[in-house]
Amino acid sequence: MKIRVGFEIVHTFWQPTPLLAMLNIHPSREHDLLTPDTIVSEPHVPISVYLDDFGNLCSRMVAPPGDFALRADALVADSGEPDVVQPEAEQHAVEDLPDAALIYLLGSRYCETDRLVEQAWRLFGDGPTGWARVQAIVDYTHERIEFGYGHARSTKSAYEAHEERKGVCRDFAHLAVTLCRCMNIPARYATGYLGDIGVPKDPAPMDFSAWFEAYLGGRWHAFDARHNRPRIGRIVMGRGRDAADVALTNVFGPNQLKSFTVWADEVAA
Amino acid sequence: MKIRVGFEIVHTFWQPTPLLAMLNIHPSREHDLLTPDTIVSEPHVPISVYLDDFGNLCSRMVAPPGDFALRADALVADSGEPDVVQPEAEQHAVEDLPDAALIYLLGSRYCETDRLVEQAWRLFGDGPTGWARVQAIVDYTHERIEFGYGHARSTKSAYEAHEERKGVCRDFAHLAVTLCRCMNIPARYATGYLGDIGVPKDPAPMDFSAWFEAYLGGRWHAFDARHNRPRIGRIVMGRGRDAADVALTNVFGPNQLKSFTVWADEVAA
Amino acid sequence: MKIRVGFEIVHTFWQPTPLLAMLNIHPSREHDLLTPDTIVSEPHVPISVYLDDFGNLCSRMVAPPGDFALRADALVADSGEPDVVQPEAEQHAVEDLPDAALIYLLGSRYCETDRLVEQAWRLFGDGPTGWARVQAIVDYTHERIEFGYGHARSTKSAYEAHEERKGVCRDFAHLAVTLCRCMNIPARYATGYLGDIGVPKDPAPMDFSAWFEAYLGGRWHAFDARHNRPRIGRIVMGRGRDAADVALTNVFGPNQLKSFTVWADEVAA
Amino acid sequence: MKIRVGFEIVHTFWQPTPLLAMLNIHPSREHDLLTPDTIVSEPHVPISVYLDDFGNLCSRMVAPPGDFALRADALVADSGEPDVVQPEAEQHAVEDLPDAALIYLLGSRYCETDRLVEQAWRLFGDGPTGWARVQAIVDYTHERIEFGYGHARSTKSAYEAHEERKGVCRDFAHLAVTLCRCMNIPARYATGYLGDIGVPKDPAPMDFSAWFEAYLGGRWHAFDARHNRPRIGRIVMGRGRDAADVALTNVFGPNQLKSFTVWADEVAA
Repeated sequence: MKIRVGFEIVHTFWQPTPLLAMLNIHPSREHDLLTPDTIVSEPHVPISVYLDDFGNLCSRMVAPPGDFALRADALVADSGEPDVVQPEAEQHAVEDLPDAALIYLLGSRYCETDRLVEQAWRLFGDGPTGWARVQAIVDYTHERIEFGYGHARSTKSAYEAHEERKGVCRDFAHLAVTLCRCMNIPARYATGYLGDIGVPKDPAPMDFSAWFEAYLGGRWHAFDARHNRPRIGRIVMGRGRDAADVALTNVFGPNQLKSFTVWADEVAA
Repeated sequence: MKIRVGFEIVHTFWQPTPLLAMLNIHPSREHDLLTPDTIVSEPHVPISVYLDDFGNLCSRMVAPPGDFALRADALVADSGEPDVVQPEAEQHAVEDLPDAALIYLLGSRYCETDRLVEQAWRLFGDGPTGWARVQAIVDYTHERIEFGYGHARSTKSAYEAHEERKGVCRDFAHLAVTLCRCMNIPARYATGYLGDIGVPKDPAPMDFSAWFEAYLGGRWHAFDARHNRPRIGRIVMGRGRDAADVALTNVFGPNQLKSFTVWADEVAA
Repeated sequence: MKIRVGFEIVHTFWQPTPLLAMLNIHPSREHDLLTPDTIVSEPHVPISVYLDDFGNLCSRMVAPPGDFALRADALVADSGEPDVVQPEAEQHAVEDLPDAALIYLLGSRYCETDRLVEQAWRLFGDGPTGWARVQAIVDYTHERIEFGYGHARSTKSAYEAHEERKGVCRDFAHLAVTLCRCMNIPARYATGYLGDIGVPKDPAPMDFSAWFEAYLGGRWHAFDARHNRPRIGRIVMGRGRDAADVALTNVFGPNQLKSFTVWADEVAA
Repeated sequence: MKIRVGFEIVHTFWQPTPLLAMLNIHPSREHDLLTPDTIVSEPHVPISVYLDDFGNLCSRMVAPPGDFALRADALVADSGEPDVVQPEAEQHAVEDLPDAALIYLLGSRYCETDRLVEQAWRLFGDGPTGWARVQAIVDYTHERIEFGYGHARSTKSAYEAHEERKGVCRDFAHLAVTLCRCMNIPARYATGYLGDIGVPKDPAPMDFSAWFEAYLGGRWHAFDARHNRPRIGRIVMGRGRDAADVALTNVFGPNQLKSFTVWADEVAA
């Protein structure tokens, strides 16, 4: 399957403004790029790139005053397979986890494990472990939070989403990540493209999506607490401890978002 | 100058319990170790070590049920110089920062930059930049928070410490780190030994200390918002985004802290 | 397309012997794993895993005396697309390369840039840059070296392969990598599965394959100096500066390789 | 003790030339900097910095045509203690080494472990392990190689130095590193300032020095196969697998070294 993905984001600035962007497709999908995934700005400015500690491809630039557009448009090969479901994937004992997974057991900006650990053990301590435990967490999160674009708030944490019972896809991901970590399952936040492939078209304007990954049976598996079903065509852009690590843009100065368009569509072979 | 540092920490466990410890002297002080800095457990268990993403030396072990002691005792060479003061150290424009410093501009578990950014700019936006700005943040934090061991709370964040106006050394560090980041100065949390060298003896039982580092003039500088004066003999153990990254121990199971002793004393040459 | 990949490797040891293995599919293909990619040993020993500095998934174990088998067998989703050809991909000026790419300009164990730099500039200095330059290097390497399994030697370097004009796939990769680096194009060594998919069946027993990646137009592209044609179904296991970084096994003691089988076959959907 | 260190290096270029420099004091000595360790160029060009995978502080710049000088001059606090000698430091079994140390067992550009492993076992296989084994390797290297500035060759490897029996400090380090690795002791190359402190003044013009570090008893220890005695005042600039990783400058274009001065002197308190 081939998927065409891209975006156009326009900000207005009043002064030269440094900008970090995490808007490239993740390097782990590099081998699937059928056309270049190049970020272009208008007006043109030099863009330098670097890999952060999580392996994400980041861009740095200084935007001039005025309207400033960032665009990309790429064709990506995809297996067309839905998210792998592997119910037999086991939970590792903490002492058996690889060192690099341990950081994903700790608290982070929007995932306050210290505030949800008792609740987590009350809910999931008597249930099964491994894949079934993560699925139970996904089910709980899916039920607990009511989806609505009006519920977005940039400072909202997992604990707050759990209390308020309302949120957007990032809140679903934060809550499920936090509960997994409380139950000693490494979990990390993921963001990227997720088009309406193999599912009815969502009437809302397309946005980037957030989901999460849990470490079970020796590897990371994608889970999606908002949709709570295997999906086709996730194309990851960033991974990190939570949304603070993978903001699509970090703008260091006053700005206004003028327009925002995202696409991710299957292309006829 | 030679400084003898060490600790004894005893936990009680009721079942075999995985444990992460960040109790070694930081690798950046390895060349100053005059005797080995070896962590020994009683009863003896195998301890494996790894470096985390921040360069800290971490230990993993599984503690058996019963009382479990961790101890270390080492002799460290030190220049005996107080923290360097470099008022001419300049603040870098965001676009001139090295890539690796950028993560220390973002929010983290206990440093909610998104909740303090307006306050930070109100307080420090009109003042000087660079070293003087960090010093102004240190002064503000030092005044804002009243120190008291009774004010410790493991879930307390910078925002909460700012509201409650009470805290311990980690809260001073978190608040100053957060304000620096809001003002586009990379700042990171540091923890380690800080004995009463060159200052009157603190009558309270000795504990590990927390301070912070700010990136100015092309390097990281130590600042201490609790003491607000240059100190002699800081021996760093861990550095990270905040206390969530550098917990001295992370225990994965029920436990009770039975005793806790820390020392850091100048030794006669 | 689905590809079934796996191996069985049997060593004989005479004493307990520590072993490093880089025999998992690379984490960048984790999202394509339709079944677990678990390494199993016979007799069973505990295997611990870690990520090295290049992002490869490595395994550590201690093999007991006697015959010791390592096996894996996994089903992998693949786009079925041949290696991307992007002749317009440009060479970056050295000053525009991301920091993380710079290490792939330097010399390494089997890639003696210092010994081939003059030759490289004589051959490719007047030609085109970017994709065409890498293709010219691939063509030259493909012509220069005569392939033959009898020409394998574990200590053979790019310089030696160039002199001797004989080698196996790793020598093709080393020479092309070295020449690219000499011409200021970051290049890294890659190894993994490459089945006979879309090409006539190779009558020789299947082995793991080695190829290389060059950094052009903002991303890494796969090139194969041995086959010198786009191939379908590369499944990368390891990437590094050269073969020294990505040995499939590093055995720390006397041993004998008893048997070795590798497979990578398209599976009917 | 305070040590004043610095350098002036002047190249001549004929065209704008990208340059990598590893000329800062290593971040592990940051806390000892009493004055800024800033690299200044003449004519002035922008210099950007980054940390490489080994934790070294690297600088990037583009030098203009003509004479181009790089200078630094800093005051560094030092304990004044000679290199620590710890004869009881044990060699770790390979299976007990931390993951991050394993890369320092493998071959690298100038350290061909595969070509020296048999020789190493013949020489050191029957002797003691741990500290005494490293000291035996240092003694052997110190005797094996005759020092002389005329013996420097940028392509010279450990194997070649062993055969030719002549070399400079980097060859001593490469040979000792290689032999340690062959004996399963992680070893890495180090370079930096080493003034004539506590030893008779060397009449030769001062240069940067190379030594090595071996991993014993849970930490890295400095050894110096050229001088074969504990020294005072080593100030490390770079660490890596061998000299290929820590070249003080990597110049991407034709150039001529016009002058070169280094200093490292004890300063009266």
